[in-house]
Amino acid sequence: MNRSEFLKMTALAGTAFSIMPAKAVFGNPSSSLRIGVIGTGLRGQELLRLSLQREDTQVVAICDIEPLMLSDALQLFEKAQKPHPVIYTGSPVIYREMLAKEELDAVIIATPWEWHYPMAMDAMDAGVHVGCEVMMGTTVEEHWNIVNKSLQTGKQYMMLENVCYRRDVMAVLQMVRQGIFGELIHLQGGYQHDLREVKFNDGKQAYGGGVEFGANGFSEAKWRTQHSVDRNGDLYPTHGIGPLSKMLNIHAGNRFSSLVSMASKARGLHDYIVKTGGAEHPNAAVKFSLGDIVTTMIKTANEETILLQHDTSLPRPYSLGFRVQGTKGLWMDINKSIHIEDITQPHRWEEAKDWLTKFDHPLWQKYGSDAQGAGHGGMDFFVVHAFLEAIKRGEPTPISVFDSAAWSVITPLSEWSVANNSNSIDFPDFTMGKWNTLPQIFANNDDY
Amino acid sequence: MNRSEFLKMTALAGTAFSIMPAKAVFGNPSSSLRIGVIGTGLRGQELLRLSLQREDTQVVAICDIEPLMLSDALQLFEKAQKPHPVIYTGSPVIYREMLAKEELDAVIIATPWEWHYPMAMDAMDAGVHVGCEVMMGTTVEEHWNIVNKSLQTGKQYMMLENVCYRRDVMAVLQMVRQGIFGELIHLQGGYQHDLREVKFNDGKQAYGGGVEFGANGFSEAKWRTQHSVDRNGDLYPTHGIGPLSKMLNIHAGNRFSSLVSMASKARGLHDYIVKTGGAEHPNAAVKFSLGDIVTTMIKTANEETILLQHDTSLPRPYSLGFRVQGTKGLWMDINKSIHIEDITQPHRWEEAKDWLTKFDHPLWQKYGSDAQGAGHGGMDFFVVHAFLEAIKRGEPTPISVFDSAAWSVITPLSEWSVANNSNSIDFPDFTMGKWNTLPQIFANNDDY
Repeated sequence: MNRSEFLKMTALAGTAFSIMPAKAVFGNPSSSLRIGVIGTGLRGQELLRLSLQREDTQVVAICDIEPLMLSDALQLFEKAQKPHPVIYTGSPVIYREMLAKEELDAVIIATPWEWHYPMAMDAMDAGVHVGCEVMMGTTVEEHWNIVNKSLQTGKQYMMLENVCYRRDVMAVLQMVRQGIFGELIHLQGGYQHDLREVKFNDGKQAYGGGVEFGANGFSEAKWRTQHSVDRNGDLYPTHGIGPLSKMLNIHAGNRFSSLVSMASKARGLHDYIVKTGGAEHPNAAVKFSLGDIVTTMIKTANEETILLQHDTSLPRPYSLGFRVQGTKGLWMDINKSIHIEDITQPHRWEEAKDWLTKFDHPLWQKYGSDAQGAGHGGMDFFVVHAFLEAIKRGEPTPISVFDSAAWSVITPLSEWSVANNSNSIDFPDFTMGKWNTLPQIFANNDDY
Repeated sequence: MNRSEFLKMTALAGTAFSIMPAKAVFGNPSSSLRIGVIGTGLRGQELLRLSLQREDTQVVAICDIEPLMLSDALQLFEKAQKPHPVIYTGSPVIYREMLAKEELDAVIIATPWEWHYPMAMDAMDAGVHVGCEVMMGTTVEEHWNIVNKSLQTGKQYMMLENVCYRRDVMAVLQMVRQGIFGELIHLQGGYQHDLREVKFNDGKQAYGGGVEFGANGFSEAKWRTQHSVDRNGDLYPTHGIGPLSKMLNIHAGNRFSSLVSMASKARGLHDYIVKTGGAEHPNAAVKFSLGDIVTTMIKTANEETILLQHDTSLPRPYSLGFRVQGTKGLWMDINKSIHIEDITQPHRWEEAKDWLTKFDHPLWQKYGSDAQGAGHGGMDFFVVHAFLEAIKRGEPTPISVFDSAAWSVITPLSEWSVANNSNSIDFPDFTMGKWNTLPQIFANNDDY
């Protein structure tokens, strides 16, 4: 889509979003997409690789400030036997030149969190759809600005939340939809992942080997760790809330109404620095704001409760801590078990494995072999597929700008609650009243 | 101890509590205890049975209003070959006559929750120590009144919270004390128990078989269910918070500072009535206030966070949901696993079994065989033993009146928070400033 087409779309945007139809309001369907990738670090490379696998997608431009990362990205084009892209580099804002010069249908953004907001805003202003890695912005106002920009420009914004497509989680979604759990009552999820070797490294490798971060760090340690210095709240809520949101029909008859967060003391990151780098290392003097464990409770309009846990600074095994509980039973991933009244033994757990196989989602049945080898157990394949397929067809993305905003805004809301003695705070309604009439369009079939 | 001795003690009480010494301030140690049991329902019978096993204890009086329960209780005296007690019956307040007539050292109270408060108040006024089943009172004020009454009379009040003595929980307490988890950061517990067949029965059996409660119910359904009709909050926090409190040294250098609670919608009890008794049953019209899942977060003075879950109205397997997490690792009971940095495999769970065996508490090593056959996996033995042993020796009970109040007051605080949009509420400091100087006296050795 070029700029003149974009301008025509803009006029339609209000109507488009107010009725959210199933087909072709976001441009004419096309057989081929022209996309740009902003950010070709380790995460961007995976999203790029998946885009390059597709026959319907041309990655015409890539953009990064790190020569090493760009060079690795180019090798992916070689491997995929695809034409080299135009490369934009040399300045953190060079992406604007890419947006102005290239005729793009969409961009995929995989940059540090704080860059997501300006890049997405500029992309939509340039008439380009946005598929953005998780976290939309830093403040509540930025989330509103993205939503309004999308509505004004008629450009879609989809947060590329891959856990929505985790195989077991999608099977549980099918079970929810078929009423296996009865009426949903309480759900849990979170991000419980020992990131200490992501937050700190030796400046050369992506994982561990030192206690450097910021200018001296490499990859995520360069930027992600500073958020743990400056902020205290659930900094990474979307892996948990994304899938739960789809089970609860958020923005398809339901919405988040209020939130409270509580943070523990902060010990883990400091202790890690002292243990690994010694008490004399300059970073041992850094004071981290982020509580080691941040717990958040959310209430929905339909009166379900949601528990989110953020736990990234202590030694622990990885677990997203899912629990899906309704009037007829529950599933938990930590013990890989399920209990369903009148079907499993009373008061007993049953191994969930057979259930997850039985309710395997049609998307996984169709694309499971294509997803093999894709990042994070294959789920990255599906989230890229969903974004590009919806854009190509001119249909609404299955994760809407409203979804993306409501999931990501949990971070600033939880920071507020932590800073205010865990008092509760109401959610903004990014749909402006339409949450109760919008349809559910996430993974309804085996298309995307 | 008779009334004149009691009066002498009263004068000492202020001093006694202000220094909380280890020995002999609650009366002279004696080789034999005279106790009364108020409430000989199913729970009271178990506590009675354990008391009758002891050579140092004479159960001289029992009290109940149900002839059937009294008759079952008498059989326990037969079995134990102990002299029959004086029986007080015929009125809900006949216990007062028992307190006035009998020369008791202590009473054990195992009556409906709403009776705990007046009975404990009257017992302390009569110069009798109190061992009371869980839940101290209904309002915050009642909790204060119990604490003040105990201080004024010099009579001890111990909540008989048995889970403090669960074998795995005590092993984990040992691990905490030996620093295996490092500095504690976040703990979880709760009461997740499908009580639908406790809350409803056929009026003849204690578990299930019908959907009656209140006047038409039997045993706990007679009184417990009404709390689910009238109240919305964490109605049963002590099984979770008791053990966690001891790990966190609450009232031995730490205290609960604030709390927030959130409740889901209420569906489980109504659905059960309709499913089991039919939509035409009169109880299908009862509106239950208690949310099916009530989640509570507590912050401590030392900045640990605690998560409590109350889940008693839905089909599910029993789980108290313990999690004990510090700077060096964590234990969870739901997956029976542990992770300790530099000892277990990085990022991996290890089965907890061997750890729990290795750190078996000295009390269990000494009394494990005596505890066999006691209720709830043996832990009932230890809680009765601890209460009677401390009273006999004239030493402070290992669960103090301050502990008991702080654990039980969670219920009215959580009701307040649920009713106030999950805003946070500060804990009362029942120790009146002494929480930071009182010693830890819980299970420090193999005595009690």
